Amino acid sequence: MPETHLRRRAALRSRLRERELDALLVVDLLNVRYLTGFTGSNAALLVHAEDDDHTVFCTDGRYLTQSARQVPDLERLVDRPCDAALAALAGTRGYRRTGFESHRVTVDQLDTLTEQAGEVELVRAAGLVEELRVVKDEAEIEALRMACSAADRALADLLEHGGLRPGRTEREVARELETRMLDHGAAGPSFETIVAAGANSAIPHHRPTDVELAGGDLVKLDFGALVDGYHSDMTRTLVLGRPADWQRELYDLVAAAQAAGRAALRPGVEVAAVDAAARGVVEAAGRGTEFLHGLGHGVGLEIHEAPSLAKTGEGRLLPGMAVTVEPGVYQSGRGGVRIEDTLVVRDGDPELLTLTTKQLVVV
Amino acid sequence: MPETHLRRRAALRSRLRERELDALLVVDLLNVRYLTGFTGSNAALLVHAEDDDHTVFCTDGRYLTQSARQVPDLERLVDRPCDAALAALAGTRGYRRTGFESHRVTVDQLDTLTEQAGEVELVRAAGLVEELRVVKDEAEIEALRMACSAADRALADLLEHGGLRPGRTEREVARELETRMLDHGAAGPSFETIVAAGANSAIPHHRPTDVELAGGDLVKLDFGALVDGYHSDMTRTLVLGRPADWQRELYDLVAAAQAAGRAALRPGVEVAAVDAAARGVVEAAGRGTEFLHGLGHGVGLEIHEAPSLAKTGEGRLLPGMAVTVEPGVYQSGRGGVRIEDTLVVRDGDPELLTLTTKQLVVV
Repeated sequence: MPETHLRRRAALRSRLRERELDALLVVDLLNVRYLTGFTGSNAALLVHAEDDDHTVFCTDGRYLTQSARQVPDLERLVDRPCDAALAALAGTRGYRRTGFESHRVTVDQLDTLTEQAGEVELVRAAGLVEELRVVKDEAEIEALRMACSAADRALADLLEHGGLRPGRTEREVARELETRMLDHGAAGPSFETIVAAGANSAIPHHRPTDVELAGGDLVKLDFGALVDGYHSDMTRTLVLGRPADWQRELYDLVAAAQAAGRAALRPGVEVAAVDAAARGVVEAAGRGTEFLHGLGHGVGLEIHEAPSLAKTGEGRLLPGMAVTVEPGVYQSGRGGVRIEDTLVVRDGDPELLTLTTKQLVVV
Repeated sequence: MPETHLRRRAALRSRLRERELDALLVVDLLNVRYLTGFTGSNAALLVHAEDDDHTVFCTDGRYLTQSARQVPDLERLVDRPCDAALAALAGTRGYRRTGFESHRVTVDQLDTLTEQAGEVELVRAAGLVEELRVVKDEAEIEALRMACSAADRALADLLEHGGLRPGRTEREVARELETRMLDHGAAGPSFETIVAAGANSAIPHHRPTDVELAGGDLVKLDFGALVDGYHSDMTRTLVLGRPADWQRELYDLVAAAQAAGRAALRPGVEVAAVDAAARGVVEAAGRGTEFLHGLGHGVGLEIHEAPSLAKTGEGRLLPGMAVTVEPGVYQSGRGGVRIEDTLVVRDGDPELLTLTTKQLVVV
């Protein structure tokens, strides 16, 4: 997708010119990947504000072949360490104001960069690439769609093959879900899979244990797949056997809150208002204090990225943002329910990427 | 292991006093884990130079239960973000000189810490915990031993069950190795498993593809297991079917270099001299330019950590250092051999942790 990366760099260059920067030194590896397509473990990029032909990509000797294939369209430097080499290059080329990622560059690293850069003025420029990344292009949304699909299919397979049954441990179920995601094209899980049975379902970020699933348990599954570097994120909560009244009530409440959150997901809406839409449903039922976290978060090259759909979140939704909507209600010592989708904000209704049913599934 | 962590903190405190620091703000999560045993994803630590009772551990609300269990022996603060909260605490408690990890703290983060810390002088103190981590204690070596054992057993199972045969893809073999490591107690692979067949074996960091193994191939397997946070690392290169003369010669050369590297692994030896011992064997055979990387690296809570056994490495070996010895010779377009062990430097001979044979295995 060289055109995709060309377009992203063009968008970045216009931001550099707005800030009167001659160039930007990009050291964050995910930002480098976003701007170039390079997937190796060591690289940096010196983006020129005016002309893509003057942008320089740097990696080390291990990645000669890979970088020639993935980044055919940029001048290449092979040196170690890349950040210092590119700072020196900015000096050699006589750039005056060169931005650096002050939210990533460490205090010690800045010393080295300053020394290497000579006469160049190094200017703080935090989050410029992340600001672009918050709105996904169609290539990114397609990767997210595939990641969500791998997770959907893994869960369907798990249920079809009787993978969720009394006597299995949380750990076994987690492992089967992860293996099945690989079967459906995932490079790996997008985070540590959560399987939480019975009272454990009341722990928001429970790690799978050797506890066995038992009849009557709520079983919370929070998992995702990694495809082409993009992360899916989905939670479903099921019941093993006949649900008790309190379990069904809890489920219906969370499902209603989740639907309200999804319905609020429209361009122009304040992110805090999306949280409020879902939280209001839980609060109206008198369970506000049992909803222990924010409503959702952006997903993309990172499993958690901007925007934050939380009380304290700032800004408004834009078309192309990819976010989770995941209210949860947790009754300590008893059980909890969380229901989570990954969606893309669109003009009009959002696009749902996680397609597994949100009806209460009784296994 | 509260005594283990207590001992590590005591060692750190004496270093703080040498530097006339009142306290050290530890933000690196692995360093926090090393000093406390906490395995969650968000925490920081303010280590008091004089008295462990004044050391404060900070995490957020998600980890109330887990931190109470894992860190029962320290004063606890539950706040977000932890780094700023502990900087503020250093101010409140009237500490004067407080160290911070300038190799981890970003430029933007230091602004926040400085603001929160008030009158406190924040002093650069990079790598203090890493200096302790370079020599492993017996609890760490036991974790490494288990991690190496999981990898050894996984490879034995793979071979015993015919997992390495013509027609299988590199990716399938990688996945089977990873699954079998889980069977033997690994929490996961300690890095992305490398399976490189035929000409791909000449690429030092090859990623597994859908290329099928074929009779006569060299097959390079570089993989490791993660146990209790510790990383094992082992490479074996095998031949599918009868080895050609050039394959056997290449193998014998690398095996001789690897043996020379292991033999040099003794307390007091310069790390660069260990590299030279192995490299000399390869150079004497006229193949020095085909040995494309350093000889080895430290392993522990990170897959790559100090010391670096390379030409440019500095310092001397100490008993308790855990390192890899992994020479490789790569003939581009033809094939390559790498043989790698994880070992612990001991008084006298090193302790070998990866026990799989280094004889040429013909499958």
